[in-house]
Amino acid sequence: MNNEDFLRKTFTLATLGKGHTWPNPLVGAVIVKNGRIIAEGFHHKYGGDHAEVDALKNCTESPGGATIYVNLEPCCHTNKHTPPCAQRLILEKIKKVVICNLDPNPSVNGQGVELLKAAGIEVEHGILAQLGENLNEAFFHAQRNKKPFIHLKLASSLDGKTALPSGESQWITGPAARNYVHQMRSEHQGIVVGAETIRKDNPKLNVRLNQYSGIQPYRIIFTKSGKLPADAHVFNDELNHQTLIYTQNKIDFNFPSENIILIKNLSEAMSDLFDRKFISLFLEGGSRLATEFMREGLVQRVSLFFNPSFLGGGQNTLGDFGLEALANKPQLKQIESRWLEGDLLISGRLN
Amino acid sequence: MNNEDFLRKTFTLATLGKGHTWPNPLVGAVIVKNGRIIAEGFHHKYGGDHAEVDALKNCTESPGGATIYVNLEPCCHTNKHTPPCAQRLILEKIKKVVICNLDPNPSVNGQGVELLKAAGIEVEHGILAQLGENLNEAFFHAQRNKKPFIHLKLASSLDGKTALPSGESQWITGPAARNYVHQMRSEHQGIVVGAETIRKDNPKLNVRLNQYSGIQPYRIIFTKSGKLPADAHVFNDELNHQTLIYTQNKIDFNFPSENIILIKNLSEAMSDLFDRKFISLFLEGGSRLATEFMREGLVQRVSLFFNPSFLGGGQNTLGDFGLEALANKPQLKQIESRWLEGDLLISGRLN
Repeated sequence: MNNEDFLRKTFTLATLGKGHTWPNPLVGAVIVKNGRIIAEGFHHKYGGDHAEVDALKNCTESPGGATIYVNLEPCCHTNKHTPPCAQRLILEKIKKVVICNLDPNPSVNGQGVELLKAAGIEVEHGILAQLGENLNEAFFHAQRNKKPFIHLKLASSLDGKTALPSGESQWITGPAARNYVHQMRSEHQGIVVGAETIRKDNPKLNVRLNQYSGIQPYRIIFTKSGKLPADAHVFNDELNHQTLIYTQNKIDFNFPSENIILIKNLSEAMSDLFDRKFISLFLEGGSRLATEFMREGLVQRVSLFFNPSFLGGGQNTLGDFGLEALANKPQLKQIESRWLEGDLLISGRLN
Repeated sequence: MNNEDFLRKTFTLATLGKGHTWPNPLVGAVIVKNGRIIAEGFHHKYGGDHAEVDALKNCTESPGGATIYVNLEPCCHTNKHTPPCAQRLILEKIKKVVICNLDPNPSVNGQGVELLKAAGIEVEHGILAQLGENLNEAFFHAQRNKKPFIHLKLASSLDGKTALPSGESQWITGPAARNYVHQMRSEHQGIVVGAETIRKDNPKLNVRLNQYSGIQPYRIIFTKSGKLPADAHVFNDELNHQTLIYTQNKIDFNFPSENIILIKNLSEAMSDLFDRKFISLFLEGGSRLATEFMREGLVQRVSLFFNPSFLGGGQNTLGDFGLEALANKPQLKQIESRWLEGDLLISGRLN
């Protein structure tokens, strides 16, 4: 196995923490001595051991003189729950550190590497850097832009319709696609919808998967008018303390004031959400809110479920978001497509 | 090789006639004697030898006592350019005939088989029947329904838009997709568009492929008002004798009267086109005409080119075609999808 093989292994390990590390990134670590893996570790959950420390605890022999592979730069800051990893690697007499990405967090960003080098540890970084970024796309985006990463979900017929003129809209896609949406929900910190979706569909906005024991995401409701149905699920169920309302007007019903955030515009809401450590949000609609996010250039990933049918008239997935020339059309990149029983999922990065 | 293998070979041979046999189907034939192929043949073009006769002419030894494999029932009618094939097979002392499909043409439909059996020839049919139908889907549809098979082409962004609100619409898809459209044109007898498309885009509606020497399809223009731009390409180029106008009102410019067909509705036009032996038409738009065809349930295949981008507002691929309940939505079947460089093609049968 070479450097790349060991780093790929850190990706696999890192992924085991999926959905539990927010707002931390997914990180895996492999410790290699004399060509043999002597320990593996990963960041299990927020507040728990970092991957390097987890691996060190799992060592089958002394890590002195070993090489550690880790997908993200070891931390050097102390403003958190765990001691800085760079310091720990020095203490354990690690000989070499191989990294995919420097930590984009301004309080690390190369300083971890500097600390290691100053202690005489050999450091290689930038290997499989793109794959490393892909693994933690939300984390990298959020750290660099001080805004949460927005993943927009759309579901429509092949002619881009979500509902008939009559308003009939449920069950455009089949059970496999709907189940996959719950999987996606579980991989985000929060689900974002507009007030209209609450009024029309009264969704539960939770993760409903067989034997799911993971974290339930926050529900983040956007409203301009402040008019919301007081009896909606999201304001009354057992997760209602995880419901946040971003509103441009006073709310017309009784809800804990700490969960209501008065904002002037989406941009202000994005800053507030980042300050609350939201780095990865799943925007499920409706069309009007999705269009607003598109207009502000706030969408980083789109996943579109197509049911292979045609509706003709009715509700569009997106409205006019102010595009003035085809040359500037938002274009999906790094596209993946797959069939979920009878429905086609297309997912890609937007910017 | 078994029966199915030999029949699959007839499909491959049949396909060599693609685009040249209209209104006849694609047919291939293989003659097998003592387990060895002694001849192959196919229907090259309309008016030429049928596949069986072509194969008989290619025999490397006497076909007496041999088995012939042919994807479609040998003909028995004499109202055409070539003598009936069933009679010919009897004369050549063929021992056995293996067929995928009976000919749906009411003037054959099992009578060819009866003629062969009456002459003591063993006949097997119904093998790989679905694949045989797929190969000649337009022919089967047209013969059964006395209407041409309509293949609708759509091209849009992922949110189902073909143009910006400004009307800017050219080049939604890339060069590979546009080249593929020319390939598709070459596989149909006629290209159908509405008057609006002629007015707005003034398309040439011909096949433009490198070193293409095949048949150029007819151009079939639908108009309600009869108002058409007299200087449009399709009325003035070297193929203008192949331009037909189906109109609900008198045409307001000078064009050969035999190319102008006054109709009351689409259904009347479909009957007239079938009477003129059009069995396979490629409907390229615009949105309004496509919507009319959808409303009347006249579309049998849809090929949709998606550019993986979003436009937001603007022109929809389809308008309201009168769908009243999601349960009745037209659903694509037998779907194939493929990437053409950066664009996604989804193609399937509609009904």
